[in-house]
Amino acid sequence: MQIRDLGEFPFIRRLRGRVAADPRVALGMGDDCAALSLSGTTLLTTDALVENVHFRREWTSFVSLGAKAFAVNASDIIAMGGEPTFALLSLSMPQDDRVEDLDAFFDGFLAAAGERQVALIGGNMSAGPCLTVSVTLLGHAPHGIVTRSGARVGDDVYVTGSLGDAALGLRLFQEGRDDAIAQGPKDRFVCPQPRFEVARAMTAQRLVSAMLDVSDGLLQDLGHLCEESRVGARIEASRLPVSDAYRSLLGPGAWDLALTGGEDYELLFCAPPARRAALRAVAETCGCAVTRIGTIVPERDGSRVLDTAGEPYLPTQVGHDHFRRA
Amino acid sequence: MQIRDLGEFPFIRRLRGRVAADPRVALGMGDDCAALSLSGTTLLTTDALVENVHFRREWTSFVSLGAKAFAVNASDIIAMGGEPTFALLSLSMPQDDRVEDLDAFFDGFLAAAGERQVALIGGNMSAGPCLTVSVTLLGHAPHGIVTRSGARVGDDVYVTGSLGDAALGLRLFQEGRDDAIAQGPKDRFVCPQPRFEVARAMTAQRLVSAMLDVSDGLLQDLGHLCEESRVGARIEASRLPVSDAYRSLLGPGAWDLALTGGEDYELLFCAPPARRAALRAVAETCGCAVTRIGTIVPERDGSRVLDTAGEPYLPTQVGHDHFRRA
Repeated sequence: MQIRDLGEFPFIRRLRGRVAADPRVALGMGDDCAALSLSGTTLLTTDALVENVHFRREWTSFVSLGAKAFAVNASDIIAMGGEPTFALLSLSMPQDDRVEDLDAFFDGFLAAAGERQVALIGGNMSAGPCLTVSVTLLGHAPHGIVTRSGARVGDDVYVTGSLGDAALGLRLFQEGRDDAIAQGPKDRFVCPQPRFEVARAMTAQRLVSAMLDVSDGLLQDLGHLCEESRVGARIEASRLPVSDAYRSLLGPGAWDLALTGGEDYELLFCAPPARRAALRAVAETCGCAVTRIGTIVPERDGSRVLDTAGEPYLPTQVGHDHFRRA
Repeated sequence: MQIRDLGEFPFIRRLRGRVAADPRVALGMGDDCAALSLSGTTLLTTDALVENVHFRREWTSFVSLGAKAFAVNASDIIAMGGEPTFALLSLSMPQDDRVEDLDAFFDGFLAAAGERQVALIGGNMSAGPCLTVSVTLLGHAPHGIVTRSGARVGDDVYVTGSLGDAALGLRLFQEGRDDAIAQGPKDRFVCPQPRFEVARAMTAQRLVSAMLDVSDGLLQDLGHLCEESRVGARIEASRLPVSDAYRSLLGPGAWDLALTGGEDYELLFCAPPARRAALRAVAETCGCAVTRIGTIVPERDGSRVLDTAGEPYLPTQVGHDHFRRA
């Protein structure tokens, strides 16, 4: 069935039936607004996925797309030291899209949100030339917020997990690769997994001085952190954590995708050297790599990546900007 | 200059310089999330404007488009008895769009938001095949919320201002009309004016039992109210308030656009007959027509529009559904 055959309001009515009642929500879907009783620090973020810009239908299932729409927003919340709580969803799509596909999108979104106890409280749907998903996600920050501006000279610089896989996955999709080794990076691109447990543990123990998520590439995002903190950074390229698939496919010393590839949704953060043991313990408890990749230096010294000989290394491009000429 | 020549981050950096610091905002644009300290009842709504679905570039200035993006969301907040407080903005647009046009969009949005003391606290921008604007607006409700579900049998049904002008304006755009009489309805379509003062006065005095804004056409929206309140309604077509331009252009007894035209953003509400004098006083104080157009009846009696002879009147279509076949 096409969406135009069902209609906007019947679809929303059906969707309401699928969203469980939540005692935290005074008024959910179905009125002009949702109503909540919030207290403490509320975090808010909004991020969009646009067809043929952020995804292609032939590369993702609708279930995965729904999960990703949640994940990329949840990543922003946990990168501030918060926990996601409530979501609003603004969708536009062609009228001849299939209701079954939209159902699958909501399957993925609601399952991912439900796993983190996040309630869908509202949204809107309209026609449009392509599928565009814009999510607004709220969060709370019981331990206070972690900003980009708290890095201090002498802090260590860390990153979780591995870098460059999502960008590599995108490249493998573009090349039409479908052998076994391509699957891991492609999965990273299609359905990123924010580092909920690591973020929660580090925030509860107040281990980090500054944090953000790597969505536009390590160097670009590190640049934002340095700019807001008014510091510089030294990154050792040889320390960059990459996956086995990345190493196999790109060979040793292939740092560019790890430095510049977007959409990894790993956590990039800083912490004083006194926190090293505590961070090792968090990594072990959470079963997630936490790798020290460099040091914060004074702003006047600027930001540099160093190669194995200690010489400055320049990748061919800095990172992703949605509007820049390639 | 095209947006691709400036880039996403430089644009956002420039925009941050234009957004005034607000003591209510713990952390605004420039980090992964915004952070607020909220208390009491928080209202949340999200609504989108999609190019060639909700607007055409040749019919609107970018300043008006920005103002409308704020207005359609603010309308949802005031229809719940609230005041808008904070906004997030998710934009996608072609990379060859002009920076000057985007600046003008923000001029309109920030001016309209600023008039209501609303702070822009975050958002995102990305490339896309057309201009799509998705706003999430927060509000507070100092006097409690007014839902769609509070209408009681015997309540009067009211509407503010005049109905059908926005839909008429759209039709006049489509017909290429540009004579003087077309201007008023066209302006209503391009830049709706939510009824902030009337909503505030009625809510502060707790005059209304149920309320929503007329965005999808009176009958469609009345249907939502009746469904949520489990009641029916009798509407007298001859009481429907229409503008002089509407009457001149469509002639007497032309009720269909007033009954079914979307995007008027008037307030549709119910109140017990004992509130009539108080509502007249509000209308007078605010300088805004408040017209009694019917009565709430038991659910089993259904909803009907009556013509001047008291006979049921059926418009040719019920209202706007973004996905329904025409």
